[in-house]
Amino acid sequence: MRIEILNTGTELLLGNTVNTHAAWFGREMFLFGLRIARQTTVPDGEAIREAITESISRADVLIVTGGLGPTSDDLTREITAEVLGLELITDEAALRSLEGFFALRGRPMAPANLKQALIPVGADVLPNANGTAPGVYIPPRLNGRSSCAVFLLPGPPRELYPMAHAEVFPRLRALSGMETPPSVLELKFTGIGESDFHQGIDAALAEIPNLEFGYCAHIGEVDLRLIGTAAALEAGRAIALASFGNFLISDDGASLEATVVRWLSEKHMTLATAESCTGGLISNRITDVPGASAVFTHGFVTYANAAKISLLRVSPTDLETHGAVSETVACQMAAGALLSSGADIAVAVTGIAGPDGGTPEKPAGTAWIGLATKGAPPTAFKVYHPRNRHDFKLAVSQAALEAVRQRLVTPQP
Amino acid sequence: MRIEILNTGTELLLGNTVNTHAAWFGREMFLFGLRIARQTTVPDGEAIREAITESISRADVLIVTGGLGPTSDDLTREITAEVLGLELITDEAALRSLEGFFALRGRPMAPANLKQALIPVGADVLPNANGTAPGVYIPPRLNGRSSCAVFLLPGPPRELYPMAHAEVFPRLRALSGMETPPSVLELKFTGIGESDFHQGIDAALAEIPNLEFGYCAHIGEVDLRLIGTAAALEAGRAIALASFGNFLISDDGASLEATVVRWLSEKHMTLATAESCTGGLISNRITDVPGASAVFTHGFVTYANAAKISLLRVSPTDLETHGAVSETVACQMAAGALLSSGADIAVAVTGIAGPDGGTPEKPAGTAWIGLATKGAPPTAFKVYHPRNRHDFKLAVSQAALEAVRQRLVTPQP
Repeated sequence: MRIEILNTGTELLLGNTVNTHAAWFGREMFLFGLRIARQTTVPDGEAIREAITESISRADVLIVTGGLGPTSDDLTREITAEVLGLELITDEAALRSLEGFFALRGRPMAPANLKQALIPVGADVLPNANGTAPGVYIPPRLNGRSSCAVFLLPGPPRELYPMAHAEVFPRLRALSGMETPPSVLELKFTGIGESDFHQGIDAALAEIPNLEFGYCAHIGEVDLRLIGTAAALEAGRAIALASFGNFLISDDGASLEATVVRWLSEKHMTLATAESCTGGLISNRITDVPGASAVFTHGFVTYANAAKISLLRVSPTDLETHGAVSETVACQMAAGALLSSGADIAVAVTGIAGPDGGTPEKPAGTAWIGLATKGAPPTAFKVYHPRNRHDFKLAVSQAALEAVRQRLVTPQP
Repeated sequence: MRIEILNTGTELLLGNTVNTHAAWFGREMFLFGLRIARQTTVPDGEAIREAITESISRADVLIVTGGLGPTSDDLTREITAEVLGLELITDEAALRSLEGFFALRGRPMAPANLKQALIPVGADVLPNANGTAPGVYIPPRLNGRSSCAVFLLPGPPRELYPMAHAEVFPRLRALSGMETPPSVLELKFTGIGESDFHQGIDAALAEIPNLEFGYCAHIGEVDLRLIGTAAALEAGRAIALASFGNFLISDDGASLEATVVRWLSEKHMTLATAESCTGGLISNRITDVPGASAVFTHGFVTYANAAKISLLRVSPTDLETHGAVSETVACQMAAGALLSSGADIAVAVTGIAGPDGGTPEKPAGTAWIGLATKGAPPTAFKVYHPRNRHDFKLAVSQAALEAVRQRLVTPQP
C-alpha cells in the first residue's frame, strides 16, 4: 500500500516552521507496520492542485495536512473536491460542531468559518475536538477519477495528532488489511555509536524471520526499534543485549532522565546536581520528568570559581593548582553538593564548552564528571566532546546522567 | 525562477530524523529573495529516479540532498547521471581530495569510497571540507534532456550548510540574475502574539513599496522579518516599533538570552538565578551564550522547599502560610539569590508545571517571577501558562528573561 503525505503551508517553505509532521507520521505508522513512500511540501493556495493531482495518480492513500482554515488561502477542501470531481455541501453535523466550538468559548462565529463545514458529498467528517476545522475522509472509488483514499487533516499538531490516532490510523489499518498490528520494542543505548550496531549485530538481526529493525541516533544515544512477531522481538532483543547489554538505558522507550528518576524513586533516593559547563542542563532534563520533585531537591549551577568555593566548598588552593576543569575539583564539587543538599547521590560536571577557554592540555570539549554517594569517597572521570557549545552541553549531560544510572544499577560495595 | 528541493533518506520517512533541511534552505534563501516552490522527501534507492525525473520537468533549479555516500543505497549520483543522460567519470581533483581526507585522519580509504569521486562529464565539483562526498553542480543545458540546473549535495548538516553558503547560494544568485541581494531586518518581540501583528500592522506593512515581510512565532516570541530596499526596511521598522516597540527584544536577530548577556556585559553587571519550576532551564539558556561566564556566576535550582530555605533563606513560616508558589516566596528567593551570590541582579521563579500539584486557586500553569537588585526591595509578578510541562517551562523562562531585560533597559529609580 503506497502512502503519500502532502504538507501544505507557505511557512514550511519560508523556513518559519520546521515540518515535523512527516517524521511524526513516519514514526507512528512504523509502529503498525506501514511506511511513507513520499512526502511533499507545497505553499498555500493553488500549488496544492498540481501536487494532489500527481499524488492521487501514484498513491493508494494520500494524507493532506493544512489549508482547512477559514481564510482565503485555505483552499485544500475546495481544490481536492474539484480535482476529484466531487460537489461540496454543508454538513449539518459539522456545522453544529463548529457553532458549539464558538459557543463553548463565548465567541461569535465569523461568517468565514461557515466554509469549514463544507464536505465533499459522500465523504466522512472526522471530528476535531481541539479546533474549528473538521477533517475529511474520502474513501477510494467514491469518485470516478481515482482509486486513491484521501484524508484532509488540519495542520496544527494539537488538532492533527489526536485526529490521526482516533480517525486516520484505524482506517489505514483497515485499508491495509492488517488484522493485528505487529508488536514493537524500543531499546535505548548510550556509550556506543550506531556504527557499532551495524558492524556488531545487523547481520544477525537480518536473519531473524518476521523482524524489521531500525536505528535512531541522537547525541550520546542510539535507539534500536524492533517490530515483528513476539518471537521475533524476543530473538532480536536477546541478540542486542548479548552484545550491548552493558549500554542499555531502557527497553520501554523511556528517556535517560526518566530512567534515572524511576531508579531513584524505586530506591527512595534523592539526587543533587552541581553543574559548571552544562549550566543547568542536567537539572533541566531531570525536571522535565513528571514526578521529579520526589527525587530531585537541590541543583547548584556554579559557573564562577567563587560559586564553587562558597556553595560547594571547593578548595581555592586546589582550584589554583589543578584548575577548575580537573579530577580534584569535580570530586570536590560532587562531595560538596552531597553535603550541602543532604541528598543520597550527587553528580558534578566541570568542563570547557568553548569556543574560547581551551588550552593544549585541556582543549575545548574536555569535561570532568564527578560522582559522590554517602559513605564512599567521590570519584571522577574525563570525557572529551569537541563539538559546538550546544551539542557539547548535551553530550556531557548525557554522560553525567548515565554515570548516575550506572551507580544506581550497580551500587558501590 | 522555480526552485525545488528533493531530500533523500529513508530515515526521514521512518521518523528517525526530522527533516530540517527544507526549513534551513527556506530561511537562508528568503534572505536573498528566493523561495522554494516545492519540497519532496523520498527514501534512499530507486525512488529517487521518479522524483528527479518529475522535478527536472517542472523546475528551473533542483537541489538534491543525500545519497552521495559510499554504500550501496547511495544512488543519487548514479541515478541523476542516468536520468540526464550524462556519463560518470572519475574526477582527478575529487579523487585527490578524498585521498587527502583519509590521509589527514590517518585512516585507510575503503574501495567503496572510490565512487564518491565519480562526477557527470562537464559538471562542477563542489569541494567538501567537512566530509568525503564532494557536491556536484550540473548547469542548465549541459544535457539535452532538461534545462533545469541540478545541485547534488551531501546530507549531513555540517557538510551541507557550509557547502550551500560557499558553492550553492552564489550560483543561485547568478542564475536568478539578481545583482545585489535585498537587505534583511529581523526584529524579535516578546509579550505579544502573532495575531496582534496581523491585526495591528499587516495592512500598513503591505502598503510599503518593495517590502516583503513574514512572521515566525515561537513560545513567548514572535519574529518579524523584513526584506527589501533600505528605505522599505526603515519604513517597516518604524511602523513595527511605533505599535510594538515596548515588546522589542532585539533588532539584529539576537535571542532573548543573548540580548540579556549583552546588556549585562555592557553594564558590567552580574546575574544570579533561583529556579524552582523551570529546574535550571533559565541558567541553561544563559549559558548557551558564548561569553556568559563573564556575567553569570551563581544558579540555584531549589526544587525542594528545604533547598529554598537552606540556600536562599526563604522563611519556613512564609512557605507554610503562602505556599511555595506565591509572591512572598518569589521575592524571598530573588533576594536570597542576590545576597548569597553577590550578583547585581537576581531573578527567581516558582510555579506549578503540572500535570499534578495544581489547586483551584493555583492551577497547574501558574508561576510567580521575582526580581531583586541591589538597594531596592524585590518585586514579583504572576504568569499563567497552562501548557504541557516542556512548553510551560519554556514560556516561564521566557517571561523571566524578559523581566531581567526590562530591568536592565529601564533601571529602577
